[in-house]
Amino acid sequence: MLPLTKRVFTGDRRAVSRAISLVENRVGEYSVLLGEIYPHTGRASVVGVTGPPGTGKSSIVDRLVSLCRRKNYSVAVLAVDPTSPITGGAILGDRVRMLEHSLDPKVYIRSMASRGNAGGLSRAAKDSIRILDAAGNDYIFVETVGIGQTEIEIVGVADTVLVVIMPELGDEIQANKAGLMEIGDIFVVNKSDLPGADKVVYNLQSVLSSREGWKQPVIKISAKTSEGMDTLLSKIEEHLRCAREPDRLAKRTAARLAEELIENVAFAVSEDVRVKLQRDAEFRSLLDKVEKRKLDPETASTLLARKYLGHLES
Amino acid sequence: MLPLTKRVFTGDRRAVSRAISLVENRVGEYSVLLGEIYPHTGRASVVGVTGPPGTGKSSIVDRLVSLCRRKNYSVAVLAVDPTSPITGGAILGDRVRMLEHSLDPKVYIRSMASRGNAGGLSRAAKDSIRILDAAGNDYIFVETVGIGQTEIEIVGVADTVLVVIMPELGDEIQANKAGLMEIGDIFVVNKSDLPGADKVVYNLQSVLSSREGWKQPVIKISAKTSEGMDTLLSKIEEHLRCAREPDRLAKRTAARLAEELIENVAFAVSEDVRVKLQRDAEFRSLLDKVEKRKLDPETASTLLARKYLGHLES
Repeated sequence: MLPLTKRVFTGDRRAVSRAISLVENRVGEYSVLLGEIYPHTGRASVVGVTGPPGTGKSSIVDRLVSLCRRKNYSVAVLAVDPTSPITGGAILGDRVRMLEHSLDPKVYIRSMASRGNAGGLSRAAKDSIRILDAAGNDYIFVETVGIGQTEIEIVGVADTVLVVIMPELGDEIQANKAGLMEIGDIFVVNKSDLPGADKVVYNLQSVLSSREGWKQPVIKISAKTSEGMDTLLSKIEEHLRCAREPDRLAKRTAARLAEELIENVAFAVSEDVRVKLQRDAEFRSLLDKVEKRKLDPETASTLLARKYLGHLES
Repeated sequence: MLPLTKRVFTGDRRAVSRAISLVENRVGEYSVLLGEIYPHTGRASVVGVTGPPGTGKSSIVDRLVSLCRRKNYSVAVLAVDPTSPITGGAILGDRVRMLEHSLDPKVYIRSMASRGNAGGLSRAAKDSIRILDAAGNDYIFVETVGIGQTEIEIVGVADTVLVVIMPELGDEIQANKAGLMEIGDIFVVNKSDLPGADKVVYNLQSVLSSREGWKQPVIKISAKTSEGMDTLLSKIEEHLRCAREPDRLAKRTAARLAEELIENVAFAVSEDVRVKLQRDAEFRSLLDKVEKRKLDPETASTLLARKYLGHLES
């Protein structure tokens, strides 16, 4: 076993940071590490927090961390930003906001930005959650900055997903609920002091329905004043008990692992095709025709795809 | 030539709608259509409009459409929402807002949602822009709902990209600028009547720099009162003249077409791998080991990827 793996198991913060960096950059002995860590995962409760920007997700996580610490749980926060190719202000902001927890050895906070590769980020997030899990954290909060496809994929690995919205967001944002309705286990209406909060709760309740025996609740809170935060944590715990019930957990995990393997393999193969195309004389010749408008991109793509799919058939 | 293609060339609105639907759903003779249309593209000025939700992108596009119509340009608007698997309220909202243009035969408005496949949406948007181009539109506005990876990819096909922001957005959104700084040709600060507008303009100006001889301008407007809209259109026209200068256009187009072909082929191959994995006994057996935690997902993925990459080598 790698010395780093052993240190991760003891919950050593510096080891955890180092391990996440290896996994994030896919360097060093990251694959050995992941292999050693994997058998020791599955214990932590993973809570995903998503929703439009500006709804106060970080503040909510901050409050939930405090409540969890009062119950003496150890907690990790993974803040993921697929829209930012560099670690930007938001994530720095989170860190500042999280300052009150920074001296608490039982709270670990980590940010992760995209480096221009959404697929890679999603994978790095999944593997980082495994590291945080193996390090003995009771709760892992996974927070995203926005609500894009990647964000939904990332929080999708959680046992319980909170969707945070707020009053006074335009129609545009309300429409985004379409994508969020399916992923949310608990809907949180933050900034409950703003006008229109009750209307948002009502509108949400009217479109939500039960699934797998769980009625998606809508909880009105104010992260600023802490109003409703206890109720929220109770609901999270209630959903976690339901979601982590062994049969249910095994079934969900199996489906997710299948999707993860397929995703990884499809990604590896498509990356390889990209590299091969760059050196492919036929690609250059077809591209030249497309540039001169003698051939359209659709036909050129189909011809090239057929060639590479032909390789796959063999 | 398909009768539908001929009708698209005359600018027949119903034909354009039908053609876009074929391309969106990849059904019927969509590939023949794209082949026939492609030689007749490249004339329209394409303007992308992106930025965080709620910043008023639709209203800005609406105003720009009016200004373009006063100059007697024909205009198409493509509103794209990668976050919504169904055509949701935002897009319906756009349509209502666009009502004033709905009787104008020289304005064509079309919405497009993701149907749960971001890659497919990006491709459908590119091909739809080609149809709108071949149909003789002078201007094509491509508007996105948010600012995720897919949105950036979609507006990336434009000649000129507007990034819309507004005062009073939280730190979280400001951080997203990291991803937007690179893609924007013109920065628009909307809702200039709100407090803090000048500060946003100042902050933006301090981080922007010149590239390829173009200094990214920051323009303060109010789509509500039309203040600054004329200046904005002038700036768009100025940038278009620069961006559509033949050598520059040819170079940009070549790079984008190469990326488009590579993207299409990589996507086709990865989709094929997904299908093949579902019927692959080795995949089932490795997945079983991963479920039982006898093997980690990373190792299983690598083994499977190697198998399919091996096929590609041959």
